[in-house]
Amino acid sequence: MKFLSFRFEDKLLYGVKVKREEAAWNIVRIHKELIPNEQVPATLLEGIQSGMELQETVRKCIRAAEESDHVSRYKVKFDDLVWEAPVPCTPKNVMCIGKNYRDHVLEMGSEKDIPDELVVFTKASTSITGDNALIPSYEELTDQLDYEGELAIVIGKRGKNIPEKQAIDYVFGYTIVNDITARDLQSRHKQFFIGKSLDETCPMGPFLVSKDEIPHPHKLSIVTKVNDEIRQDGNTSDMIFSIEKIISTLSKGMTLEPGDVIATGTPAGVGKGFNPPKFLKKGDQIKVSVQGIGTLTNEIGE
Amino acid sequence: MKFLSFRFEDKLLYGVKVKREEAAWNIVRIHKELIPNEQVPATLLEGIQSGMELQETVRKCIRAAEESDHVSRYKVKFDDLVWEAPVPCTPKNVMCIGKNYRDHVLEMGSEKDIPDELVVFTKASTSITGDNALIPSYEELTDQLDYEGELAIVIGKRGKNIPEKQAIDYVFGYTIVNDITARDLQSRHKQFFIGKSLDETCPMGPFLVSKDEIPHPHKLSIVTKVNDEIRQDGNTSDMIFSIEKIISTLSKGMTLEPGDVIATGTPAGVGKGFNPPKFLKKGDQIKVSVQGIGTLTNEIGE
Repeated sequence: MKFLSFRFEDKLLYGVKVKREEAAWNIVRIHKELIPNEQVPATLLEGIQSGMELQETVRKCIRAAEESDHVSRYKVKFDDLVWEAPVPCTPKNVMCIGKNYRDHVLEMGSEKDIPDELVVFTKASTSITGDNALIPSYEELTDQLDYEGELAIVIGKRGKNIPEKQAIDYVFGYTIVNDITARDLQSRHKQFFIGKSLDETCPMGPFLVSKDEIPHPHKLSIVTKVNDEIRQDGNTSDMIFSIEKIISTLSKGMTLEPGDVIATGTPAGVGKGFNPPKFLKKGDQIKVSVQGIGTLTNEIGE
Repeated sequence: MKFLSFRFEDKLLYGVKVKREEAAWNIVRIHKELIPNEQVPATLLEGIQSGMELQETVRKCIRAAEESDHVSRYKVKFDDLVWEAPVPCTPKNVMCIGKNYRDHVLEMGSEKDIPDELVVFTKASTSITGDNALIPSYEELTDQLDYEGELAIVIGKRGKNIPEKQAIDYVFGYTIVNDITARDLQSRHKQFFIGKSLDETCPMGPFLVSKDEIPHPHKLSIVTKVNDEIRQDGNTSDMIFSIEKIISTLSKGMTLEPGDVIATGTPAGVGKGFNPPKFLKKGDQIKVSVQGIGTLTNEIGE
């Protein structure tokens, strides 16, 4: 299923994509009006916490809507909603894997920078925003705003010391993150947190796709375009550390929680990798597409 | 006021220290039994969000308890409670300032490592624990478990782009953090997140002291003892970046939220700074004392 969080009539809601339509089933409204006595999560994060059961619950909701006299009342057209990140507020900061694609490491440095061990930094949860959101240019703070298209894992089950073989059991599904980065702040402050945590620099979405629809997460093309020019054209098969390895390593001594988001790293082709660099400027449109998930589109505003 | 969060009779509660007694006023019980019609926050984090009003509310609660027929029913002796971190779950990961005391920078490296700009990393919110909590030894993960006693700021008001001159307006109060660190993981994974985020490696407390009681936060002695041997003996007057500078820099483009915790860095004397190093081992007791706040005590368990 393709889940989404959205704003409609000033309320934060969630739903699932209607098959073959550019619209979402409004799960919150279906629950309230048609099956108020059923247990239905109030937010997508709550739904994620209920695990695989969520799909059963949602199917029940869709059936109730289809059998009602006003099917269209329970759908919201994508044109009429404001996209929110599937997980608008993660329990921990968004965790990001640095240097996880060989060619990206080389464009940013040299062979000696290829890591032997996972490199992990975080983006403040306040940096999360949704598909279509405007990203401030932050002209007063940075001259080097850059994009990084990434496949992101959304954790579905609390766990610690998770063996690689069981790692996928702890995944709820996958989404897209654009890890917008102020390169000058990133290097000036040594540790990456400040350069990675400006408000609205973690667009996420548009969908959170449940893992049953993505049985091979290491065979996904990942393409980033700026103003329709292809900048990144990679494949998740090129990750240095696999999803299983990432989950296993992060969970050594640290509890992962439902709703935690892990961005798995970016392939070659970031703005800083070009000579001269191609940093983002006002009016630029960035599209990150991951096979099986969709396209995350954002524009740089004022 | 000295606020605390605690567990009593299996409930997460909060209160304030009773003057001249080793006990807490049980604000939640007072509210429920004596003044149920008043608006009283249910948790300390909710209280922090209500800002300076909290002190007025708490005073009303204490008066109600003192005027009741069963004063002792509304106090919990420190001996009878389980300490929780004042903010058991922060909105963002705990933010930590690295290399903020000159002598500490020198013991870990050399003159060239003294930073020109703020160095900020985070500890996962799942690493937070309270005073008196046992900290696992993590023998299977690290040979270099280390302590770092620190003064921590608790943010009381949402804000962004905060000028240094107004920074203290955004502070609710101060507490103590022991930034327990697995040095080998910290260096092996390059970015600090993994080595700083093991569960229970962010003891915080015992008290959150409101800022009116600490008018001079840059004149506080900070002492860390391991098994009663003084290891760190510093003063917050030696910080390279002041509290005002930290808040102002962090909030450039990033929203600070009530309940956010910022650990302001550690003075010289960490285990790694000794020759040979003095890392933590099972059974070690660590005490971090900050003037005006109290002493945070933890022991390394199995």
